[in-house]
Amino acid sequence: MNTGSATPPETVGQLGEFGLIDRFVARLGAAGQALLGPGDDAAVLPAADGRVVVSTDSLFEGRHFRRDWSSAEDIGHKAAAQAVADIAAMGARPTGVVVALALPAETSVKWTDGLADGLRDECARAGTAVVGGDVVRADLIALTLTAFGDLAGAQPVTRGGAHVGDIVAVAGRLGWSAAGLVVLTRGFRSPLAVVNAHRRPEPPYAEGPHALKLGATAMCDVSDGLIQDLGHIAKASSVRINLDTERFTVPDKLRDVAGALGADPMSWLLEGGEDHALAATFAATVELPAPWHRVGSVVPGHGVYVDGVARDAGGYDHFA
Amino acid sequence: MNTGSATPPETVGQLGEFGLIDRFVARLGAAGQALLGPGDDAAVLPAADGRVVVSTDSLFEGRHFRRDWSSAEDIGHKAAAQAVADIAAMGARPTGVVVALALPAETSVKWTDGLADGLRDECARAGTAVVGGDVVRADLIALTLTAFGDLAGAQPVTRGGAHVGDIVAVAGRLGWSAAGLVVLTRGFRSPLAVVNAHRRPEPPYAEGPHALKLGATAMCDVSDGLIQDLGHIAKASSVRINLDTERFTVPDKLRDVAGALGADPMSWLLEGGEDHALAATFAATVELPAPWHRVGSVVPGHGVYVDGVARDAGGYDHFA
Repeated sequence: MNTGSATPPETVGQLGEFGLIDRFVARLGAAGQALLGPGDDAAVLPAADGRVVVSTDSLFEGRHFRRDWSSAEDIGHKAAAQAVADIAAMGARPTGVVVALALPAETSVKWTDGLADGLRDECARAGTAVVGGDVVRADLIALTLTAFGDLAGAQPVTRGGAHVGDIVAVAGRLGWSAAGLVVLTRGFRSPLAVVNAHRRPEPPYAEGPHALKLGATAMCDVSDGLIQDLGHIAKASSVRINLDTERFTVPDKLRDVAGALGADPMSWLLEGGEDHALAATFAATVELPAPWHRVGSVVPGHGVYVDGVARDAGGYDHFA
Repeated sequence: MNTGSATPPETVGQLGEFGLIDRFVARLGAAGQALLGPGDDAAVLPAADGRVVVSTDSLFEGRHFRRDWSSAEDIGHKAAAQAVADIAAMGARPTGVVVALALPAETSVKWTDGLADGLRDECARAGTAVVGGDVVRADLIALTLTAFGDLAGAQPVTRGGAHVGDIVAVAGRLGWSAAGLVVLTRGFRSPLAVVNAHRRPEPPYAEGPHALKLGATAMCDVSDGLIQDLGHIAKASSVRINLDTERFTVPDKLRDVAGALGADPMSWLLEGGEDHALAATFAATVELPAPWHRVGSVVPGHGVYVDGVARDAGGYDHFA
């Protein structure tokens, strides 16, 4: 029997499955655009133009985040950012996110509260909301987010539409998360600017639909590193992509951090993932407004070249 | 350098991330109704009536399946069945499934081939297909499936619409998976009829949209046990549900197995989950065609009663 003086539940096990779901859903707030939100066998979302854009991504503790490096809020932000960035990369606006959460019974309620807050706040930043989910018990924490988007009648911007003669441009940060990861890996907790960039990426969500309107011929988000992700565009479009390092500006902060660590900041910009910038190709005649800036060009051939030198565009293999 | 005499890759680690994705996608076959299938940042699915039904579910090795009890094909079948049954439970037809797969590098390619086959075949049985996904490395095997559905202009059948005076009916198997689980737990591998029912549930997918057309007032799939799942309908609809055991027929096979094990087969029918039958309420005037059969009624009050005795409708707590 619950009494007024009972100790509030401190762990998910004490709270119970349905207690956790109720608490998590209450914390997430309104289910955005959902026609039917959490609490039934399935949610129902609007898909105004008769299509829905769908992307799914998993994050596992120890592989994609560490609880000693990132708060629960950070992990919520990062999971939502990663999921919704894929929707933006098609040129779509997000319409909802569902969250499949696995966690041990020993997980603290404080932690799951923080996760819900981070998911809610990052979804709000992207103009969307969590509309449903699932909770299971597991021996470690893992999240799979599936995000949905609306193309408002337009064709999606795929990876396969880059043409010879196009320019290559980027919107959003490059290298910041990689710098933060190196700092954390070496046992430091600052400078906060880069550590926080690793903890909470800031994808330029609105630039996805913006690029579509500007006529982007191909687009992807930079999740595994610019060279690797452009390698997917080069392969899918049967073209070669040339990057010119002269066109990249190394931010002062990254130059400082790299100097202190004896690292090459340009390698962070070119190879660092998880900032979820957007990279796209456009006809050379398109006048690119900020924050888009040109970093290269599309030529005949295959692969990704930096200053004329072929780089491995096979990219980061998560199983290697 | 690959040569004609090279040994084919035996593990996911040898195959590599992109090799695995290519092989998995090829094995899955055509992406069904997808307007844009696997291979880009996101998939694009039709949502003909301007809405999409969405449900997500995770299965973790050791919690939801055991590789010594179920083949890779079985696990693919079970994961797809569980995901798509939630779509049917809203009265919708499935339009696609995305699969987020986590697995160790040591996983055999033979196993992932089997998983792809099981997913493909169960999706085909349900009239749908895998349209996209994600692969990450982890220390154990886990799958999160997100399934999509189309209501063809109708309103979804939620858990909240049951009315006093309605009848309660079920379509599909009850208790078979529970019987199979007991057999496996006791170290047996037969009788195959119940063991296979546990390995590969057979949800009556088409009965979801059928029930909607018949005017179902509330519906859910039986994933955690009939009493528990009807408890969700009772709670959401603010009604009491009475079940009459006289109205249940215990299949001979379950009676035999229960006899051999000294178990009560009726408890399997009432409390066993994972068969993914559909349970629904209908106005008493509705003539129910097979396979729907009446098992109870909706009366004022709350909770679920069996032969007049209140049963715990709180249900199985995965964290208890």
